[in-house]
Amino acid sequence: MGGVSTVGDRVDRVPKQDRSRATRQRLLEAAVACLAEHGWAGSTVSVVAERAGVSRGAAQHHFPTREDLFTAAVEYVAEERSTALRALFAEDTAADRRAVVSALVDLFTGPLFRAALHLWVAASNEEQLRSRVTELEARVGRETHRIAVDLLGADESRPGVRETVQGLLDMARGLGLANLLTDDAGRRERVVAQWAGLLDDALG
Amino acid sequence: MGGVSTVGDRVDRVPKQDRSRATRQRLLEAAVACLAEHGWAGSTVSVVAERAGVSRGAAQHHFPTREDLFTAAVEYVAEERSTALRALFAEDTAADRRAVVSALVDLFTGPLFRAALHLWVAASNEEQLRSRVTELEARVGRETHRIAVDLLGADESRPGVRETVQGLLDMARGLGLANLLTDDAGRRERVVAQWAGLLDDALG
Repeated sequence: MGGVSTVGDRVDRVPKQDRSRATRQRLLEAAVACLAEHGWAGSTVSVVAERAGVSRGAAQHHFPTREDLFTAAVEYVAEERSTALRALFAEDTAADRRAVVSALVDLFTGPLFRAALHLWVAASNEEQLRSRVTELEARVGRETHRIAVDLLGADESRPGVRETVQGLLDMARGLGLANLLTDDAGRRERVVAQWAGLLDDALG
Repeated sequence: MGGVSTVGDRVDRVPKQDRSRATRQRLLEAAVACLAEHGWAGSTVSVVAERAGVSRGAAQHHFPTREDLFTAAVEYVAEERSTALRALFAEDTAADRRAVVSALVDLFTGPLFRAALHLWVAASNEEQLRSRVTELEARVGRETHRIAVDLLGADESRPGVRETVQGLLDMARGLGLANLLTDDAGRRERVVAQWAGLLDDALG
């Protein structure tokens, strides 16, 4: 309980909440980095707490279980990336589709995708994780789809457009997987250029 | 060394080679099933030997290390599937593209993809596995690309065609990943129908 006081006036309470939020954020970021680097087997609450420079007790105060910590971490970082992606194109009312496709594909490379992949694969063999990760995936997937539709200016009332966008995001996920063991950036760029063109024709 | 004799004439040797080949095959099939169900952490030579009904010593005679067994297993099953896919369309000189796309996507669902995924993800964190799996992936990937080009009747001398086919296989890989935790068959079928149409337009 060191440093945590149950007495406080309004002036004291605000910075404490800020500290708590900052601690939570450090834990979430450390959890994603840990998962990306060491996989599920090497990712425990203790390892993440140490990496974040937070006591194990404080970490468990924020996240009672390992599943809580890692699903929250993947969701938090996914939301951060979605917000950043929307901001990137916010002022660009006529963003070119190739830039949008490229930015969408980028969501599936890097540490967040790597962390999420470790979590999915672990969830496929672990009952406690499975329902949590399935639900998380559905939420993140829906949000990514909404962003893609908005940024591509896709009209989903037209037949086939929804499936065109879904297929694009499946392709992005597959490109992420292809980048897991080797740097696939060169090939990926050529595939993105080609399919951005095909997509442009398809979306009109 | 029980049962293994260094003395044998031609007549004896042939069935012994057959037995040896059958044992090897049982081990490879058991290894893929084991990897798909229990992941890399739960997949050891002993577990696979038991599942295949083979002694641990016999298993190690065929595959000296765990890495040998599991990379050979994924490669063997991938080859079996490639052969089956070629045979499926061998007599169909004008196979319709949607059926081909559907069959290609099927390569990325089911136990083989699940097993390969566990191997890739483990390889991303384990040095001994990494180079083996990277090399295996390159070989299997090239063969899958060749099959896709042949079955789709794609003319790779035309600009963009190579990348169009690559993107399709990336989409197939992403659809496989989307099927890991939940049965995604309904959505997948709609995406395949739509993208088979886009591909048809693109390939002419």
